[in-house]
Amino acid sequence: MINVGIVGGTGYTGVELLRLLAQHPQVRIKVITSRGDAGLPVASMFPNLRGHVDLAFSAPDLDSLLACDVVFFATPNGIAMQQVPALLAAGVKVIDLAADFRLKDEHTWAQWYGMPHACPELLAEAVYGLPEVNRDAVRQARLVANPGCYPTAVQLGFLPLIKAGLCDTQSLIADVKSGVSGAGRKAEVHSLLCETSESFKAYGVPGHRHLPEIRQGLAQANGAPVGLTFVPHLTPMIRGIHATLYARVKDTSVDLQALYEAAYADEPFVDVMPQGSHPETRSVKGANTCRLSVFRPQGGDTVVILSVIDNLVKGAAGQAVQNMNIVFGFDESEGLRHIGLLP
Amino acid sequence: MINVGIVGGTGYTGVELLRLLAQHPQVRIKVITSRGDAGLPVASMFPNLRGHVDLAFSAPDLDSLLACDVVFFATPNGIAMQQVPALLAAGVKVIDLAADFRLKDEHTWAQWYGMPHACPELLAEAVYGLPEVNRDAVRQARLVANPGCYPTAVQLGFLPLIKAGLCDTQSLIADVKSGVSGAGRKAEVHSLLCETSESFKAYGVPGHRHLPEIRQGLAQANGAPVGLTFVPHLTPMIRGIHATLYARVKDTSVDLQALYEAAYADEPFVDVMPQGSHPETRSVKGANTCRLSVFRPQGGDTVVILSVIDNLVKGAAGQAVQNMNIVFGFDESEGLRHIGLLP
Amino acid sequence: MINVGIVGGTGYTGVELLRLLAQHPQVRIKVITSRGDAGLPVASMFPNLRGHVDLAFSAPDLDSLLACDVVFFATPNGIAMQQVPALLAAGVKVIDLAADFRLKDEHTWAQWYGMPHACPELLAEAVYGLPEVNRDAVRQARLVANPGCYPTAVQLGFLPLIKAGLCDTQSLIADVKSGVSGAGRKAEVHSLLCETSESFKAYGVPGHRHLPEIRQGLAQANGAPVGLTFVPHLTPMIRGIHATLYARVKDTSVDLQALYEAAYADEPFVDVMPQGSHPETRSVKGANTCRLSVFRPQGGDTVVILSVIDNLVKGAAGQAVQNMNIVFGFDESEGLRHIGLLP
Amino acid sequence: MINVGIVGGTGYTGVELLRLLAQHPQVRIKVITSRGDAGLPVASMFPNLRGHVDLAFSAPDLDSLLACDVVFFATPNGIAMQQVPALLAAGVKVIDLAADFRLKDEHTWAQWYGMPHACPELLAEAVYGLPEVNRDAVRQARLVANPGCYPTAVQLGFLPLIKAGLCDTQSLIADVKSGVSGAGRKAEVHSLLCETSESFKAYGVPGHRHLPEIRQGLAQANGAPVGLTFVPHLTPMIRGIHATLYARVKDTSVDLQALYEAAYADEPFVDVMPQGSHPETRSVKGANTCRLSVFRPQGGDTVVILSVIDNLVKGAAGQAVQNMNIVFGFDESEGLRHIGLLP
Repeated sequence: MINVGIVGGTGYTGVELLRLLAQHPQVRIKVITSRGDAGLPVASMFPNLRGHVDLAFSAPDLDSLLACDVVFFATPNGIAMQQVPALLAAGVKVIDLAADFRLKDEHTWAQWYGMPHACPELLAEAVYGLPEVNRDAVRQARLVANPGCYPTAVQLGFLPLIKAGLCDTQSLIADVKSGVSGAGRKAEVHSLLCETSESFKAYGVPGHRHLPEIRQGLAQANGAPVGLTFVPHLTPMIRGIHATLYARVKDTSVDLQALYEAAYADEPFVDVMPQGSHPETRSVKGANTCRLSVFRPQGGDTVVILSVIDNLVKGAAGQAVQNMNIVFGFDESEGLRHIGLLP
Repeated sequence: MINVGIVGGTGYTGVELLRLLAQHPQVRIKVITSRGDAGLPVASMFPNLRGHVDLAFSAPDLDSLLACDVVFFATPNGIAMQQVPALLAAGVKVIDLAADFRLKDEHTWAQWYGMPHACPELLAEAVYGLPEVNRDAVRQARLVANPGCYPTAVQLGFLPLIKAGLCDTQSLIADVKSGVSGAGRKAEVHSLLCETSESFKAYGVPGHRHLPEIRQGLAQANGAPVGLTFVPHLTPMIRGIHATLYARVKDTSVDLQALYEAAYADEPFVDVMPQGSHPETRSVKGANTCRLSVFRPQGGDTVVILSVIDNLVKGAAGQAVQNMNIVFGFDESEGLRHIGLLP
Repeated sequence: MINVGIVGGTGYTGVELLRLLAQHPQVRIKVITSRGDAGLPVASMFPNLRGHVDLAFSAPDLDSLLACDVVFFATPNGIAMQQVPALLAAGVKVIDLAADFRLKDEHTWAQWYGMPHACPELLAEAVYGLPEVNRDAVRQARLVANPGCYPTAVQLGFLPLIKAGLCDTQSLIADVKSGVSGAGRKAEVHSLLCETSESFKAYGVPGHRHLPEIRQGLAQANGAPVGLTFVPHLTPMIRGIHATLYARVKDTSVDLQALYEAAYADEPFVDVMPQGSHPETRSVKGANTCRLSVFRPQGGDTVVILSVIDNLVKGAAGQAVQNMNIVFGFDESEGLRHIGLLP
Repeated sequence: MINVGIVGGTGYTGVELLRLLAQHPQVRIKVITSRGDAGLPVASMFPNLRGHVDLAFSAPDLDSLLACDVVFFATPNGIAMQQVPALLAAGVKVIDLAADFRLKDEHTWAQWYGMPHACPELLAEAVYGLPEVNRDAVRQARLVANPGCYPTAVQLGFLPLIKAGLCDTQSLIADVKSGVSGAGRKAEVHSLLCETSESFKAYGVPGHRHLPEIRQGLAQANGAPVGLTFVPHLTPMIRGIHATLYARVKDTSVDLQALYEAAYADEPFVDVMPQGSHPETRSVKGANTCRLSVFRPQGGDTVVILSVIDNLVKGAAGQAVQNMNIVFGFDESEGLRHIGLLP
């Protein structure tokens, strides 16, 4: 049984983290902070938690966090990096669901996030928490940088192909579609139901903050930089990410289905579907699973990989709990065996 | 650990029952039948169950059902009544999620369901499985008639007021709104996304099959027949029922909030919200909870009660599992503590 | 050809007014003001208007409005009343889509809108623009108070019954469901897609600003105050209002279908559907029509009336254009013959 | 004024055609046939047409069609080709909204549509009705093959680039997302609201019938075959197609914005948006417009083109009316100036 703190739990990542942690048998939630909503019972803001979470939001307070075994940051970018050094110094583990520690290069981070990094000396130490890639490192980590939602779906889809050295890594394309919860619980016109439902659009085509994160992960697998075009889209639903990935293969004789099945044979949260399947985002709604399928349409040299996750679970809170399980030596699936809600 | 069979599991009630039972620590799912889909792996039809349910649908077969401790019927109306006598004779418990055993009067049943009843002698014995009313009887039951979705939301809302003798029981109004999953997983034009989304409508205003069921339950509490107008509506979402109930009170000095809180103080799955709350259906999405609130607007003599459930959980599969728990002496909440999915 | 000005066109009522006026053969849109977005081309905010409306928003400016024949206010409550006296003094007609001139009683207005009225002397003169009731008065009006969306649907549904003196007017119930566009285009958490889709809720049960407006209209028809319980709900779609109305009749022998057909026989925008029909909101999406049906379920003494409109058209911008047509002597249907968009 | 017949008007293409034709000043709808629904008033099936279309469906009957100036086929594939020769022989113009005459090669058609073609001798004569490419030929046509929805969005997006000879035509990628109305109004489980809303998926990745149609059109512009990967997706909304197109350019110095603006400068229904815009499908809901934008992200050699249409309008019924206008010498925009419905 460990004591857990959450900083900034008033967003969708926060409520999802609460849902998962409140049902986790090894966890006691000790504190959840919110500057703006201190004093408000958590279940008043998120009525699904009535009867399950009795805490109220409390004002940010370092002392109460120092009494925890692990602290999750579900804050806007740029907050965690202010507080992490003090927590680490006190022996508290940190799992950051924001982007503060995802990029290894301080200058790239500053360029994409529009501010200097507050503790660049920790960037090298932070472990990028994609367990399928970095499980061993996570086990030893003090500080886990939980991956972004798009990067999780895209990397899990591309990695087996790239690691096998089978494709042209200079012309990768990731056409990715996200539900609206990816935009967060901020009061903004562009996230209103009347602006987003019954419509579909791309956004951020010139450049999105998840581009350098995906590039970094793919380059590491490739052993060299990759060329990637990444186009995110907004689709009129609450949860779910669907990545449609395109790569050109040099050798069309390889059995891609076998390659993918082998790559993820031991992974509890990656499901390579039977040949010919088209995964639906609803099949992972509320679940920590990534479902994949792989095609080579019309026998050509273009490979199409489909990859779906729930952006709030495997793309955020669920993966964070998975990382916590690894860090503390719990069964990696503890608290994460929920079946997705369908329909 | 009990052995469970499911007859007719290809609808939304079926997949929800599978989701709950597959995660229930006291249950082993032995058989799930479907005439049309025999041989198909369940997880091929419902991909959220991949990795959780390894069964395939099997052809209907009495012998395999007789080997179970309890059989759930998630079939169209009129099927269960053909098979229940043989199962009961063999000592198998039955929980029917269809309407075959909900009405006590054989003639009323035949009138509303358009066929003669196949085993009217069992109507008296069957226990109407609304635990908040009939918990003790369910404990002894061989045959449980699981309530309809609308009747669950409406009865839980009206019962405290009627039992207390506080309202005119001849002018009750139930204006109820359901998500589209209430119409089932049948291939019908009127349930297509393009027919139901971005629209709202009433249906069945002249008479709906749940009307006699609700009337029967309210009359029992009232000790006399009631006058009820029931108008169901279709609302463009998947899950959820919202009942808005109207009754005229004789005495406006009664503390209705206290009355409702007392009525449900010991109920694990009925949540009377704080005064002034407006329950949202999303607060119970995937959960076995009914949330209620009660108002007397503008200080008048009309009481407004709001009651929300997930039609597939407390309105169907979850309540069926709750009844199973009671029948077999398990903790009533076993396998039903899932927190609703929000957003 | 008349010159038209719009004050405050950045909301959903504004863009709908622009859609209708831009296609109206007798109208030239001269000016559309917005304090916050002055200088922005209208079609940048509302891309459906690209190629149809070339104006940019301009800063509020009395002179440009004085050059118009009619000015529409699509502003928050409390704005129009500041500017209307000057416009009327200059001979400009005014159609207010907000609530400033809807209530006849200054004190009731102040109580529900939380501020003193700026020009109470105009309340008596303002014509409540429900053409089916006040067509003749609108023809002479300088100042039209365009009805609210809920009040339009509820009054058109109840009026024939009340005028005929057939029901108990002390126990009326209006259970009304609205799409989310009724909440406007403001950046507020409770209107986000992730807060409103896949959910249904009531709101404002203790009291909603449209209650006194509806009461006033029904009392006028009744010749005496009425008792009304009004419960608004939010339904997960963009457009549409569905009112389900309940009243008790004294005499169950009256032919209600004939009564309603006669009441609206000459109305271009009220459609009494064939007996037994259930109108869908999607049947009026984008159209200025109210569709009605009337039932007396199970032969009892409770009448159920179903009434649907598009809240942005017959419930706001369309009705405003209808009033404009009447004021200026155009064909009442001019610019309003668009067929609803289905699916 | 021309007389128009519609064969098979019970689908979404049919109701949209009726909406547009009923408001077209040069058209009199004479007959609309349906084998299954003969005798049913059209407005009973499609209540938005109440008061606008007084016809009933009639049984298929060649004589009544021969009395028309033009007949639209809104039938399943394989029907029109049975009847077209007789109509043409009698001098009746035909516009086929199905796929019967879209492909020039008889064998390719038979392979993708799974039946032999009934009148292959007409394939050469039929004019592929994409006005932006074939306007002059349409003007002379007896038989117009109205393009598919995906092919319209994809071709309008790719054509300027391909015609200019600027890209590698062997590695084109079209990642396209469609609303559910593209699946038609058939009673099928996979189109139910509960199967499609709150979910996103690809389908037909191994091969979709629109692939050879798109390839044919692009090859014609290219003067040589093209290599194209086409992945269609289902997105949870009613109307709209969003194509995201990828191509590699040889020369990164070309001003693509200027190229696209010039290509469509005179087109009434193609709108090249300002540089940096992301078109939304809702901006064309109910309108006959295709909106485009073009990007070269991060200054690389991959071009991204975004193209949106309403699949039922510019992707079906609207384009059919546009073709009719051209065939009969009407103003090409007649009856097609409706502004899209937003929100």
